[in-house]
Amino acid sequence: MGKVDKKRKPKLLKGFRDLFAAELLARQRLLDLIRKTFERYGFAPLETPALEEKPLLIGSGEEASKQIFLFTDPDGNEVGLRYELTASLGRVMASYQELPRPFKRYQVEPVWRYDKPGPGRFRQFLQFDIDTVGAKSLLADAEIIAAIGDCLEQIGLGYRIRVSSRKLLDAMVAWLGMPYKMPKPVFRVLDKLDKHGWDKVKLELGPGLEDKSGAWIEGLGLNGDHIKQIKSYLAQTDPERKQTIRNLKSIFSVGYRGSAVPKDTEAQINQAIAELEELDGYLTALGVESKQAFFDLSIARGLDYYTGPVFEAEITDERLGRFGSVMGGGRYDELIGQYTGQPVPAVGASIGVDRLLAAMREVGKIEERASTAEVLVVTPFKELLGEYVKIATELRGAGINTELYLGKPGGLGKQLKYADRKGIPLAVIAGPEELERGELSVKNLRVLEDSDAEEITDRREYLNARLAQFTVKRNELVSELKTVLEEL
Amino acid sequence: MGKVDKKRKPKLLKGFRDLFAAELLARQRLLDLIRKTFERYGFAPLETPALEEKPLLIGSGEEASKQIFLFTDPDGNEVGLRYELTASLGRVMASYQELPRPFKRYQVEPVWRYDKPGPGRFRQFLQFDIDTVGAKSLLADAEIIAAIGDCLEQIGLGYRIRVSSRKLLDAMVAWLGMPYKMPKPVFRVLDKLDKHGWDKVKLELGPGLEDKSGAWIEGLGLNGDHIKQIKSYLAQTDPERKQTIRNLKSIFSVGYRGSAVPKDTEAQINQAIAELEELDGYLTALGVESKQAFFDLSIARGLDYYTGPVFEAEITDERLGRFGSVMGGGRYDELIGQYTGQPVPAVGASIGVDRLLAAMREVGKIEERASTAEVLVVTPFKELLGEYVKIATELRGAGINTELYLGKPGGLGKQLKYADRKGIPLAVIAGPEELERGELSVKNLRVLEDSDAEEITDRREYLNARLAQFTVKRNELVSELKTVLEEL
Repeated sequence: MGKVDKKRKPKLLKGFRDLFAAELLARQRLLDLIRKTFERYGFAPLETPALEEKPLLIGSGEEASKQIFLFTDPDGNEVGLRYELTASLGRVMASYQELPRPFKRYQVEPVWRYDKPGPGRFRQFLQFDIDTVGAKSLLADAEIIAAIGDCLEQIGLGYRIRVSSRKLLDAMVAWLGMPYKMPKPVFRVLDKLDKHGWDKVKLELGPGLEDKSGAWIEGLGLNGDHIKQIKSYLAQTDPERKQTIRNLKSIFSVGYRGSAVPKDTEAQINQAIAELEELDGYLTALGVESKQAFFDLSIARGLDYYTGPVFEAEITDERLGRFGSVMGGGRYDELIGQYTGQPVPAVGASIGVDRLLAAMREVGKIEERASTAEVLVVTPFKELLGEYVKIATELRGAGINTELYLGKPGGLGKQLKYADRKGIPLAVIAGPEELERGELSVKNLRVLEDSDAEEITDRREYLNARLAQFTVKRNELVSELKTVLEEL
Repeated sequence: MGKVDKKRKPKLLKGFRDLFAAELLARQRLLDLIRKTFERYGFAPLETPALEEKPLLIGSGEEASKQIFLFTDPDGNEVGLRYELTASLGRVMASYQELPRPFKRYQVEPVWRYDKPGPGRFRQFLQFDIDTVGAKSLLADAEIIAAIGDCLEQIGLGYRIRVSSRKLLDAMVAWLGMPYKMPKPVFRVLDKLDKHGWDKVKLELGPGLEDKSGAWIEGLGLNGDHIKQIKSYLAQTDPERKQTIRNLKSIFSVGYRGSAVPKDTEAQINQAIAELEELDGYLTALGVESKQAFFDLSIARGLDYYTGPVFEAEITDERLGRFGSVMGGGRYDELIGQYTGQPVPAVGASIGVDRLLAAMREVGKIEERASTAEVLVVTPFKELLGEYVKIATELRGAGINTELYLGKPGGLGKQLKYADRKGIPLAVIAGPEELERGELSVKNLRVLEDSDAEEITDRREYLNARLAQFTVKRNELVSELKTVLEEL
């Protein structure tokens, strides 16, 4: 290590963040849960480097390219920090022909975006992607939807997965007799439904509108009839998957102006509906009911590359109000082929780990603690240090996470405050006379907490009576602490 | 997603690597073990950004600076990818005065080095660091040594932790009456003992030597007497910690030329030995015996910034031959203060995750499998797909990691080959007639393995007789598979 420049206090780069124990321990538990759930479906991990060649990265699109940290490495290569994980997946599929296919992988790694920093918006964040590459069958889509549902069931938040299909939206646009280039612009506008509401979307489908800043947003110029029919198409959404399918069959059975449906459009409609029926069948066999995943015709997902089913998991927990999407994805049968040179079907999803943690935190599903330790062994008497070390070792040996106070011995008050600030619930205290009697004290630091919630008051009374501070026999310490930790 | 440049096949950057399931699943298990062990001692996680300001990064020293990926970000800041994790820890300690201290953290994150790529040498690799900041007490050092021992005990590899002390080496150099600038050059040369052996180290302490390429390596110019005494100092190492302390007391009791030891040198020696005794006491109280951690006077650890105890965990497993160090660290009481502006004592260690995995792999402690799935439900009959989905769902519900074949139904041979290539041990096979009888087949794919080991042959006979392929009742599938998976 050389000398650090003392004139300048080192600081965190703008838009980045340090993460501490309370956040990371909660995140670790959540990641373990998601990982284990997808492993149950046979997904396995993949890791790729943070740095990739520039040509690969800018394949992520023009808008994305502006946000990529690009530079020239000492070898003279143009490289950058990955913006997302899909381009690297494409590279992997192109590079390792020997990989057994279908290839089912999850990848949990940071990505970097040179974005305008804002609340909850960082230039480095964790991306959790799941993809099945090389499977045409919609069973692959259904499994990802089912696994997402399994994750949310275990987390215990109210949710619903909204499923739609790009093919269905294509069929709808064809049914309206609109130009073949229309589907994608229409998807991009419909994607704003949740955020902007129908009134604004209606204007954007038609003549255009002024945004908040007064800037003019060009409309698609659809006529009133088309817009009315799009609204009526969206209204076919039913809480029951099978009913939505019946509704669609009914509205598409005649042309939107009452004429017969042209043969090729009819074929397109039939195929799109047949796919929904197939997906519904798989979801049912996988145990996914309509109350967990339903067909929501308003789901479009803006990204151009989707080609089949698209889906979004939304938190609907009544404790949260409108919270929005925490996981989303869809089928993209044309993207991987751009890397490999041959058509490769694929379906995948991304999990918004930070958003999911925020939702869990809001409903109190996260126990915030800055410490991993359950017990602090305090060191009030320097001459007893050896004994304190033995106590800590004994507790650790019994599987109890134990911190031994490593600051200066003495100063009991300071040590208890340290435990309290770190959120360590119990302190073990031993003085020379107690130890001579073969005894120890255990202090419950939770009773120091100030709270006016009634439930807590009751618990506190209970704890005060039994546990605020109590004496245990030295040789019963482990079993007593285990009992108390279970009750906390 | 925009279009990818089709003329150029995307490729991995030189010196980087992709990691697949077999490696990552084993690594995940190892990281969980290490993390949980350090959490038992009250260490908690920290994460910092991959990008840091250039001035912070080049604080890592001149040699390091050459290997840092530095660039100018779009804001015009000079930034770089972190070379190691200690500089970021320093920044954190300087930035968050409110952190309870002692601050005990572990950090498991990638670092980047623009290094010459070679076998097992990559430009991005995982660093696992553990540090206690703000504790003067050698108890902090002892706890890290104990936790490292706990990790290695659980992994089940033969090991020994070699402990020495910079203060002791300083005292030895003073005892020899060498100039005050000598200790660090001597450490750097002694650090090569393991790699180069005494004969070369002796030349480098003295007149210098020619290296393999014929280049001249300048020696320190110590006289023969000094070199002889350094050798005799090194020879005081004993397998028992207490004996080494006795040996040291004995050789340092008189000056190296038989004269009396000067008063200030005597004080320095006494303090260094007292620290060893203190450390020995803590280690003993923590349950660490001499056969796990002993005082090895040849350990110097080259880094300049160590100020007290230094240690290295070496794999000594007889199945491996000479394997070398997999974890190492020491006390560095002057480094963190360079960031914070005030003296802050600290001790820490780094774990060589990749080297540890390599050692485990070599002795067969890693079950290599490219898949998380324990069972593949094959789909030989398209019309039974719904039934196959239900079987997979049932197995997953029972906690069995199950992959459902997502490729084209039919082609049983191809599907079994897929399972075999991925290392999935069992396949569930169902045809229409079997299902009608309420039955299913289970195929054990391990018996397809080709091996000439006798043990395997015996197991294979056993498996052939009972398990190569067998029929189970549909309603007993879960319990049967659980039994078979336990036996595998």
